[in-house]
Amino acid sequence: MTPESRERPSGERRTYRATVQYDGTAYYGFQRQRRGTPSIQATLEQALTQITGQSVRVIGAGRTDTGVHALGQVVGFTIEWPNRHGTDALLRALNANLPQDVAVTELAEAYPGFHPRFDAQRRTYEYRVLNVPVRQPLMRQRAWQISQPLDMETMNEAAAFLIGVHDFGTFGRPTVGDTTIREVFEAEWQREGDLLVFRICANAFLHRMVRSIVGSLKEVGCGKWSVDDFEMAMASRLRNRSATSAPAHGLYLVSVEYND
Amino acid sequence: MTPESRERPSGERRTYRATVQYDGTAYYGFQRQRRGTPSIQATLEQALTQITGQSVRVIGAGRTDTGVHALGQVVGFTIEWPNRHGTDALLRALNANLPQDVAVTELAEAYPGFHPRFDAQRRTYEYRVLNVPVRQPLMRQRAWQISQPLDMETMNEAAAFLIGVHDFGTFGRPTVGDTTIREVFEAEWQREGDLLVFRICANAFLHRMVRSIVGSLKEVGCGKWSVDDFEMAMASRLRNRSATSAPAHGLYLVSVEYND
Repeated sequence: MTPESRERPSGERRTYRATVQYDGTAYYGFQRQRRGTPSIQATLEQALTQITGQSVRVIGAGRTDTGVHALGQVVGFTIEWPNRHGTDALLRALNANLPQDVAVTELAEAYPGFHPRFDAQRRTYEYRVLNVPVRQPLMRQRAWQISQPLDMETMNEAAAFLIGVHDFGTFGRPTVGDTTIREVFEAEWQREGDLLVFRICANAFLHRMVRSIVGSLKEVGCGKWSVDDFEMAMASRLRNRSATSAPAHGLYLVSVEYND
Repeated sequence: MTPESRERPSGERRTYRATVQYDGTAYYGFQRQRRGTPSIQATLEQALTQITGQSVRVIGAGRTDTGVHALGQVVGFTIEWPNRHGTDALLRALNANLPQDVAVTELAEAYPGFHPRFDAQRRTYEYRVLNVPVRQPLMRQRAWQISQPLDMETMNEAAAFLIGVHDFGTFGRPTVGDTTIREVFEAEWQREGDLLVFRICANAFLHRMVRSIVGSLKEVGCGKWSVDDFEMAMASRLRNRSATSAPAHGLYLVSVEYND
């Protein structure tokens, strides 16, 4: 035993912050469901229990839906982990015990009481549209495939209305005790090869908000809605003025930012 | 009935050439296997039978192995297809009848007797390596994930020995009545973000040749083999001098070229 490990009893509880990537295809979303229904939360909790023998509760920054992917979901959990084992060993053990469609890319000790959802300052999502005439099998669970040509410039004119503090009631319902007001910092389409990638950054999102926005912007892109139609739908704050939501498999939780 | 459609009896047999993309993950390779084992060939034949009611034989340019993907496989088949329906209708019908992990991206009438394998002049494959410290779930069936850093420049020094007419016996066994001599036109690694992409173009390939070459170049890239070791292994023409083959899920049949 080294002097350092003596200073802290091996049984001390530590809080960790982990960045998690996943292919959401096989999961019923982030949040734990009834037993036997795969979720990212339960998958992470099982891996931590296998490693530590402890019952562990994992909290996520964003409750991604069924089929939604993550490049940078952030989760928090508290476990007893001996100092002598170190954080790198826990990271390696996690990736060895997680299935191939989930991985922890970063792991660090967090301040006590760290809450990944309440403490988050900004979330960034990407929505990927594959805008080609014929579907591409290798992209089938990675992007929304739309064969009719979309006008990216017009979609960006409409997306500009999203920026700022607005009531986004058109694009999502509030949870109990919450409003539908959010602040959007960034909302823009960019072309990456055959892909049209919509990047949106906000302080927080309503449930289904990004998919509802993308579904409505798509109507602008294919000429069914004018930019004015989009602005009026947004100003109405009526949930039934949104177009049909875009499918889950084009959506990625890209990153979550904290003040630290 | 239009005058044009009268000129050709609707029952005339036509030969087609199709470019096919697929995600090879769920298939036991291109070639038809025993009943009940999914293959790309059987999948294409079933779709054509569903559309035409005819028993159809599909021939592929390259017999990709289990788990290998294609961006531009070329196949040929002969069916009775009424002129009035046109080639575009056949393309749409094919993509409507194929599963989501297979698609036909191009379709054209070919000269009678067209044989996608015997008539092919060049084949191009890509092998994708994801060279990052932690595995990426969204790339798990799309690239070989290698965490130790690979030296691309050294791998390219070794790859240069592949170019030209050589006996590639180290990297594959001949089929009956064939030699192990092939002509390689291009063999080079390029970096694309986190990916190292090996592109190799040859008149034809031996079975498992690309994966055997990539497995050996990886030994050079991680410093286990010198460039000389690679050259000597290749010069030996002994199959057991190859390193372990790279896994199938990083390999893509990119294109097949014809003289026409």
